[in-house]
Amino acid sequence: MFSLGGNNYGKSGVRLVRVERETPRHAIRDLTVHTALSGDLDATHFTGDNANVLPTDTQKNTVYAFARDGIGPIESFAERLARHFVDRAEPIRTARVQIEEQAWSRLGDHSFSRGEGGELRTCEVVYDGERVEAVAGLRDLLLLNSTDSEFGGFLVDEFTTLPETSDRILATAVNARWTYVGATEDFDYDRAFAAARGALLAAFAGTYSLSLQQTLYAIGERILEAIPEVGEVRLSLPNRHHYQFDLERFGIDNPGVVFQAGDLPYGLIEGTVRRETS
Amino acid sequence: MFSLGGNNYGKSGVRLVRVERETPRHAIRDLTVHTALSGDLDATHFTGDNANVLPTDTQKNTVYAFARDGIGPIESFAERLARHFVDRAEPIRTARVQIEEQAWSRLGDHSFSRGEGGELRTCEVVYDGERVEAVAGLRDLLLLNSTDSEFGGFLVDEFTTLPETSDRILATAVNARWTYVGATEDFDYDRAFAAARGALLAAFAGTYSLSLQQTLYAIGERILEAIPEVGEVRLSLPNRHHYQFDLERFGIDNPGVVFQAGDLPYGLIEGTVRRETS
Amino acid sequence: MFSLGGNNYGKSGVRLVRVERETPRHAIRDLTVHTALSGDLDATHFTGDNANVLPTDTQKNTVYAFARDGIGPIESFAERLARHFVDRAEPIRTARVQIEEQAWSRLGDHSFSRGEGGELRTCEVVYDGERVEAVAGLRDLLLLNSTDSEFGGFLVDEFTTLPETSDRILATAVNARWTYVGATEDFDYDRAFAAARGALLAAFAGTYSLSLQQTLYAIGERILEAIPEVGEVRLSLPNRHHYQFDLERFGIDNPGVVFQAGDLPYGLIEGTVRRETS
Amino acid sequence: MFSLGGNNYGKSGVRLVRVERETPRHAIRDLTVHTALSGDLDATHFTGDNANVLPTDTQKNTVYAFARDGIGPIESFAERLARHFVDRAEPIRTARVQIEEQAWSRLGDHSFSRGEGGELRTCEVVYDGERVEAVAGLRDLLLLNSTDSEFGGFLVDEFTTLPETSDRILATAVNARWTYVGATEDFDYDRAFAAARGALLAAFAGTYSLSLQQTLYAIGERILEAIPEVGEVRLSLPNRHHYQFDLERFGIDNPGVVFQAGDLPYGLIEGTVRRETS
Repeated sequence: MFSLGGNNYGKSGVRLVRVERETPRHAIRDLTVHTALSGDLDATHFTGDNANVLPTDTQKNTVYAFARDGIGPIESFAERLARHFVDRAEPIRTARVQIEEQAWSRLGDHSFSRGEGGELRTCEVVYDGERVEAVAGLRDLLLLNSTDSEFGGFLVDEFTTLPETSDRILATAVNARWTYVGATEDFDYDRAFAAARGALLAAFAGTYSLSLQQTLYAIGERILEAIPEVGEVRLSLPNRHHYQFDLERFGIDNPGVVFQAGDLPYGLIEGTVRRETS
Repeated sequence: MFSLGGNNYGKSGVRLVRVERETPRHAIRDLTVHTALSGDLDATHFTGDNANVLPTDTQKNTVYAFARDGIGPIESFAERLARHFVDRAEPIRTARVQIEEQAWSRLGDHSFSRGEGGELRTCEVVYDGERVEAVAGLRDLLLLNSTDSEFGGFLVDEFTTLPETSDRILATAVNARWTYVGATEDFDYDRAFAAARGALLAAFAGTYSLSLQQTLYAIGERILEAIPEVGEVRLSLPNRHHYQFDLERFGIDNPGVVFQAGDLPYGLIEGTVRRETS
Repeated sequence: MFSLGGNNYGKSGVRLVRVERETPRHAIRDLTVHTALSGDLDATHFTGDNANVLPTDTQKNTVYAFARDGIGPIESFAERLARHFVDRAEPIRTARVQIEEQAWSRLGDHSFSRGEGGELRTCEVVYDGERVEAVAGLRDLLLLNSTDSEFGGFLVDEFTTLPETSDRILATAVNARWTYVGATEDFDYDRAFAAARGALLAAFAGTYSLSLQQTLYAIGERILEAIPEVGEVRLSLPNRHHYQFDLERFGIDNPGVVFQAGDLPYGLIEGTVRRETS
Repeated sequence: MFSLGGNNYGKSGVRLVRVERETPRHAIRDLTVHTALSGDLDATHFTGDNANVLPTDTQKNTVYAFARDGIGPIESFAERLARHFVDRAEPIRTARVQIEEQAWSRLGDHSFSRGEGGELRTCEVVYDGERVEAVAGLRDLLLLNSTDSEFGGFLVDEFTTLPETSDRILATAVNARWTYVGATEDFDYDRAFAAARGALLAAFAGTYSLSLQQTLYAIGERILEAIPEVGEVRLSLPNRHHYQFDLERFGIDNPGVVFQAGDLPYGLIEGTVRRETS
């Protein structure tokens, strides 16, 4: 009468710090790993028979064990883990490994400060025993243009009160994810990430924006242009409103200099830009 | 060479409080609303032509305007909003409205304290001009069983260190979503929500659990049994680990009474339970 | 040329769950404990000589060990810990123990859901080898009055734009702390806490408020009246603004029913109410 | 029988963004301002008579109005605001203004990304009509040394289980506050802040640490050496534990390379370093 649909289980929030200490000039990697496995799991759901369940505690141990010999690009580390889970334990059919990496900046040979504004590099790798799908990305990258942004010419209805503006602040916290297709074994994920991030920043800074959607599309386009292996780019861009504060009530002008940064509510613009496959 | 894929835009985090004050005994409703519209939006993405864009500010205004004459069940309020956006403005093809409701407990005729442990009632309604799809749910409902939970008989590999246990704390923060199918116009969403929540609590408290998956399935099953209009139940259950603290090192026994509540990492069990359609 | 001023060290965020399982009807206690010790600590600061330092890891272990035989009121548990640290280890002169307790509601004999809107009961106990000072309190208690609140007659200057209002929503998240003076050994902290909380709720709900300061004072007064052992009450009350949404722009009236709940910025009213000692 | 003790009222979380746009190469300032006023406020507490109350909404307006002609160092901006509140409105006796500044990095002439790892520059200025007291600081500056940190030789009692270690990761999130004394009118707060921050980083990176207290003292000392106008430095340093993960259970060595970053609980070391005034 009832049946089990899609399901998975795993460990979330595995906090891994790896120190590279082959030379006196150390390096560190700071990852948060999330694993999720699926397979034939009817028994544990129906009767609590866990014979097909690899404990989430074991999944966590595996993450740390695999870090022993180095991490490499997070996409590669995620793939190694995903392949291990599926290829070693027969009841596990699919593994999804998500990683967020926090960058650190160097202060000295073995001293570091957290880098890059809280921004995280991300990936999600899914392996089903045959194919690997890799999605790379970043999130919480805060960007702001203090001009070259307009908004007007929009639909007007009985609830419209927003005036058109020919000069506003445009600010967002970028959440971007892009898929790699046809990446060969020696594909350089780190180089591709750097190229995608650079393309994203250039598109944001370089676009005279008539809508945040236009900026979104420009970002996607620029990433696709920069990296032939990227098949599509998904972007989620909150519109962090900055309201020009009304100082005229006090007899003071405000030529676009004093703004109240809004918190809630915020606009949210989401879209996908794809490479056409002809 | 590139094309626009799926996309939407809207206002997130619209914080609405509605006071029902027809009598001296007031009532309050506390909602956070998120709207997302889609339609023919190529122009705003390609050239910044916003002729088909209903500003997110207008969407926010609409939420407040529609609250004037009462809210009703959040599913109904979401549907009214979604139908308005799609039916009134031709370029808008689909609207998705998500709402979270925070309950308040009564202290007096017009005095209230926040209720129910931070738990939120949720819904997501999608309308495409023809069909309405409604998903109801709740999240951040923290539950804990202090016994009647075991975990053993699992897969063992070279990274397994977890001992089997015949008595543990089982704690989770329930995130549940269920779909309504074939709900008639006079369907009582509030009664259905109360029934689903009650079924969920009864299943959690009443299941002797050999795995969190077993508890998950029991919850889904119980909700499906309680409400014929529910087609499927999706559950996301973090396993909030409680580690029995090792006091024997100090010559003190610990007969299942002193636990360290873990934070990160946590297990995450996700699954769907469906009504069979024969 | 430089010297060491006030200093302390300890463990923060010790997450303790205690199960009372003497009978099949269990009870649970959910505490977060913070310890802070001070004493003669020049050596560790100047040269890294830790001979006088009780590791924060040991402090954590002590918390769990002391929970073995029951918790009792959090004030008593904090005092037991503070006395232990100071009385046992000579270099430790003063101990401060802070505890937050999360309440849980009963669902069954050994099943629970998190209770009371996320509110926390708190205490801070300081022991210096001679005297014990105990401060009790609560925080994150969200309260809202939907009427019986005005605000007017205030100072006006060149930057004033706020209109007076004769009917507004008054909402806050109470952070209250009160000191006990002259509490005897058999003082019932739990009963006193319940009485203080009840007085606080009654004062909030029962005060026709011309300013949040007036409500603050009424709360302090009512707690002092209710519990003779309380010497003073410190209150920190954010004013969670609810803005009546302007619907007249749409030709709709808004007779105090539709509000936008503000987030940032918020007012913050802080004050102390004292028992006069003549 | 009861009396009013210390009290204040103000606006918290005033989010101000200022664009410097005199030339095509813009600059931005991103501040969160908190104001708190006190004075003769018996009436508003006792009877709700607000004649002496400057609404927190007016305080907010004042922050934005004062930003019109530029911000300068946050300490100076806070002082201008504090002086205004006290000197203009007679019932206001003391003003405290706290500011947090988020730095942004330049991407282009008018494009920016959030800078410096989420770290905030802070200040707190108090003015009572006669004297100005300025405290500067920073918080959420995450630092990590991957070696050159030991911990041993500590007090041992019956609850001690921590082994001594001769090589550990030392990581913290610095919260530092330092007072300026005898700063003349043309004191360069920005230069002083940069010098203090540089001294702090150098002390953290350059100290071979036998205890976090030793690192704390070294930081305080170095800041006092660098800036003669600093009278004392208060530091709050969480010890963000990194646990070397036990891989030997799997037959794998772990020569200080694989760590589990802990979350809760954490150590907390707090101390003050003062300039001796002989």
